[in-house]
Amino acid sequence: MSFDILCEKIAKKDNPTVMGIDPLPDYIPADIIERAKALYGDTLKAVMEATFEYCIGLVDACADLIPAVKPQSAFFELFGLEGEALMAKIIDYAKNAGLYVILDVKRGDIGSTAAAYAKAYLGKTALFSGEEFMSNVDSITVNPYLGSDGVLPFLDEARKFDKTFFTLVKTSNKSSGEFQDLACENGITLYENVAKKVCEWGKDDITACGFSRIGAVVGATYPMQAKKLRELMPNTFFLVPGYGAQGATAQDIAVSFVNGKGAIVNSSRGIMCAYKKTGENYKDAARNAVIKMRDDINSAIK
Amino acid sequence: MSFDILCEKIAKKDNPTVMGIDPLPDYIPADIIERAKALYGDTLKAVMEATFEYCIGLVDACADLIPAVKPQSAFFELFGLEGEALMAKIIDYAKNAGLYVILDVKRGDIGSTAAAYAKAYLGKTALFSGEEFMSNVDSITVNPYLGSDGVLPFLDEARKFDKTFFTLVKTSNKSSGEFQDLACENGITLYENVAKKVCEWGKDDITACGFSRIGAVVGATYPMQAKKLRELMPNTFFLVPGYGAQGATAQDIAVSFVNGKGAIVNSSRGIMCAYKKTGENYKDAARNAVIKMRDDINSAIK
Repeated sequence: MSFDILCEKIAKKDNPTVMGIDPLPDYIPADIIERAKALYGDTLKAVMEATFEYCIGLVDACADLIPAVKPQSAFFELFGLEGEALMAKIIDYAKNAGLYVILDVKRGDIGSTAAAYAKAYLGKTALFSGEEFMSNVDSITVNPYLGSDGVLPFLDEARKFDKTFFTLVKTSNKSSGEFQDLACENGITLYENVAKKVCEWGKDDITACGFSRIGAVVGATYPMQAKKLRELMPNTFFLVPGYGAQGATAQDIAVSFVNGKGAIVNSSRGIMCAYKKTGENYKDAARNAVIKMRDDINSAIK
Repeated sequence: MSFDILCEKIAKKDNPTVMGIDPLPDYIPADIIERAKALYGDTLKAVMEATFEYCIGLVDACADLIPAVKPQSAFFELFGLEGEALMAKIIDYAKNAGLYVILDVKRGDIGSTAAAYAKAYLGKTALFSGEEFMSNVDSITVNPYLGSDGVLPFLDEARKFDKTFFTLVKTSNKSSGEFQDLACENGITLYENVAKKVCEWGKDDITACGFSRIGAVVGATYPMQAKKLRELMPNTFFLVPGYGAQGATAQDIAVSFVNGKGAIVNSSRGIMCAYKKTGENYKDAARNAVIKMRDDINSAIK
């Protein structure tokens, strides 16, 4: 659904944070692992059952406080077909809990291949006759390295089915500058060139909330660059990774907002593993971490 | 397995071509579709069965002529969990036929997430104790936009399990130049900057064949750029898309070879859909298309 829906959910919960669902096995609390092992032995099924219990527990604990979740596809693809099946179940669970679901897949390809990814995640898949949805998500992430050919097929499907996607612009990792920060012939950096294209691609798809269907991933770990991007992209909704465990503060993320709106801040480990620091059970710890993060961000952006 | 194995297979078959497996439903011959519909009705299962019959028929028809296949993940992800299961079956089938399998996934992420993709496709997945392979491929494709953090985790797994991967450098699509051709502050383009990093990342992993474990995707549709890249990357194995249906000729791809070696040329539609032009059955047409392509390329590179 367009960013109007996400903006409504953010306003209702008064919380511009998205809980990342990155279920690394060593994030899972010991008692969940022990229960799964007792039932299924030391098997893949035990890992999948433990991951399911942990993830839906996190959704149950936080659904009334957060507008959205961002499952990371890699941590499900890691477990092959069983992992993919589990990811679909968790996505359905989060959707049923009323959450906006951003699937972090970072897909990018060209022509009919990009169209296949777009249909797989945002649109419908054609069978010999008729077509059906294969995925239940509202939004995904997309890699821009291949240019318009790699991005516009996602816009086609987003339009048809009232969905959105986020293009990587300036990522939060240490080496993101190796290519993204290169100054180009036109006097601006690569990430600014990508930003300009994101604005251009999205300009005819600005919905009621004031933001286009094509969002941008802008890391909080580079606040100076994020500030520049916020000025360059007034009608682009930002997905902001890097808060908390990766080191960015509420002040760092504040520059990505416009009048307290237009961005959603991700935290994965900071919420999922809060119990390791506080000693509470993992659900209470996650809930308290979300409340703390909400208040921290709101105090900086309002 | 390292590019030594691929080079051996190329030498043995005297054929530096890889058959792309991009099973779009409208590529599938009508009689296969009719048979599947008669058995399974107008269902997803019918599409999957028809796709399976078609793909393994192509492998059967061409396995003695080609060294490798390149399944495109997008066309399997398009069919959700059923598609993923089918992809695994086709990969196993191609491996059993003695082919080197390059899975075109174009993944790219950071830190522990990139490591999860690397383990999912090239390495082993840790369970609560022990670990197992989730994928049966020899090589994959990787997107470099996120820099070293996004690429080096793939090298770690490739080393551990004697595998390889190809980083996108200069892609074959029309808009590939939008970002990749931008001239940068250091006087070279973005794709040349990526090329330099690919050489740097791979420099300690050059195996007996003279090429490192990190290959490069270099589109045949830009022969001038490919020529420059071949000079810049003497120890890098190239995966070359763009021949045939996308418009590049044997002369265009010749610049990607060094003394007749060091590259593999992809054709998907040109082989898979050859029957539509010749009127033969699809297997004979595919076989004849492979022979024609082999002879065309060999005449240009030898």
